[in-house]
Amino acid sequence: MQVLRITRPGGPEVLDFEERPAPTPGPSELLVRVRATALNRADLLQIRGAYPAPPGVPADVPGLEYAGEVIATGSLVRRFKVGDRVMGLVGGGAFSEQLITHEREALPAPENLDPTQAAALPEAYLTAFDALVLQGGLRMGESVLIHAVASGVGSAGAQLCRAMGARVIGTGRNAEKLSRAPAWGVEKTVLCDSSPPRFADAVREATGGRGVDLALDLVGGDYLPETLLAMAPQGRVLLVGLVAGRQATSDLNVILTRRLRITGTVLRSRPPEEKMALTQAAEKSLLPLFQAGTLTPVVDAVYPMREAREALERMARNETVGKLVLRWE
Amino acid sequence: MQVLRITRPGGPEVLDFEERPAPTPGPSELLVRVRATALNRADLLQIRGAYPAPPGVPADVPGLEYAGEVIATGSLVRRFKVGDRVMGLVGGGAFSEQLITHEREALPAPENLDPTQAAALPEAYLTAFDALVLQGGLRMGESVLIHAVASGVGSAGAQLCRAMGARVIGTGRNAEKLSRAPAWGVEKTVLCDSSPPRFADAVREATGGRGVDLALDLVGGDYLPETLLAMAPQGRVLLVGLVAGRQATSDLNVILTRRLRITGTVLRSRPPEEKMALTQAAEKSLLPLFQAGTLTPVVDAVYPMREAREALERMARNETVGKLVLRWE
Repeated sequence: MQVLRITRPGGPEVLDFEERPAPTPGPSELLVRVRATALNRADLLQIRGAYPAPPGVPADVPGLEYAGEVIATGSLVRRFKVGDRVMGLVGGGAFSEQLITHEREALPAPENLDPTQAAALPEAYLTAFDALVLQGGLRMGESVLIHAVASGVGSAGAQLCRAMGARVIGTGRNAEKLSRAPAWGVEKTVLCDSSPPRFADAVREATGGRGVDLALDLVGGDYLPETLLAMAPQGRVLLVGLVAGRQATSDLNVILTRRLRITGTVLRSRPPEEKMALTQAAEKSLLPLFQAGTLTPVVDAVYPMREAREALERMARNETVGKLVLRWE
Repeated sequence: MQVLRITRPGGPEVLDFEERPAPTPGPSELLVRVRATALNRADLLQIRGAYPAPPGVPADVPGLEYAGEVIATGSLVRRFKVGDRVMGLVGGGAFSEQLITHEREALPAPENLDPTQAAALPEAYLTAFDALVLQGGLRMGESVLIHAVASGVGSAGAQLCRAMGARVIGTGRNAEKLSRAPAWGVEKTVLCDSSPPRFADAVREATGGRGVDLALDLVGGDYLPETLLAMAPQGRVLLVGLVAGRQATSDLNVILTRRLRITGTVLRSRPPEEKMALTQAAEKSLLPLFQAGTLTPVVDAVYPMREAREALERMARNETVGKLVLRWE
């Protein structure tokens, strides 16, 4: 099988194809023929050598999500059979023609999505679902602030909020990308083109002075102190990404008097029992909404696998709306 | 009845006695003859004009907790009768010979505690119980870091952790006060006499490199970034006070990669339904442990009410271990 491997730390140009023996599934594992995978910022970090793969996945092959079909199963597998269409998250190694996953970390691919759509689903929707619903306790009637709302996770989060009866205010640094947001249920957008960003007044105004109940923060840095000012009493901030920086100076009195909760979260480093639990919760709660057409993965573009380098460069330039997908031909 | 009132914004010297008509209880309220009250840092802030009382309590009379007995009841009161010994939290006005409280915000005073001990209980133990147990989800076997462990809330939190089968590491700025901590179940103390404080290495060493599961942070300021470094994966930080300052510059990457949760909390401004819920939870979970002698309020000193000013000055000098109590003669 072919893999796209990191030949040395660097930019997308260091990726190259290599022929490898196919892996063998363990008793509870599936061997999956990968039809498509999708890009994440973590791939760029990993290629640069700044985000090592967790133990148990190929260290030199990026890729955190996939869609394809089952081509072999371990002796204890009960949930899937050869030929089943699947999709899911992996700790790495999805830039590969075949991969191994535990059967409880794989999801049945919705029938109405082709592999390039299904591959765009796992990271964006499971991240948003886990942060907003499982950790954030999103309830109908609440208001939610989503930063970088035109990203894969941002657009997934907005659709989830709409599906659950919550209102969304979205921020972004690009007016053209923000103009797409109403299609995902975003009620109001705030363009953040200053540094530090200023959006708290606009958010408070859009919520009758109260602020938002939940914030999905994909950017961190100096967005965080301003986010705190945009929160309603007992608001919950989910910190999911740090593209705007890792240092922040915050007013702790706002956290205290408004009784805010800030939770940092990451999926990749979780132990298997948590990954399985998230996958099972998503199968139950999320998949029916894809089948019903309430949720639709936002795909920016689909590239053939041999153009992975160009796709990664496009992601690095922040030109995308939603997900970039790679497909094996 | 006598009250000790704030005559103008200032230090403890602005307090003076005044004769006032006794209040009348509403249908679900108790009229309480106050035997003792206890001091909190919020009293100093309120006297200075920096922490206004919430609506519905006397704006010019400090005091957040009391012990005494019921001397009249509203027509719908079911839980208490005249003569019952009670204690509890109020939004203000406890520096008074009589006060009004809703029957669901009052607790029966444990039989084995006299009024000066019972008055030292509500704020310290309800704050620690709410933060550690109700919000922090403390579980047996966990490790807990408590800052200002010789304070009223700190010593209460340490006793609670011991009672629940959790380990405590305590910090403080005064070696003599810290020497008292083993009596409350504190396993290890760390003296913080530098600025910024340095305790994360000692905490990690004391937990086999893992860090603590929970932190009860009564000080804030530059303790917070150092606290984050002392946390185990998925650790929870409860931010309860800001005596060390309200600004903090934190490394968000620590919050993200360790999946930490930071929750700000304050009791006084909560709506009545939350105060009632906390009181009822405390009656069920906490009171049996006082009756059994597992928990004992730590009382630094008892002053007669006419020496309230001296007591407040002692608190301002940070000389206390545990609570300062005021009693009516």
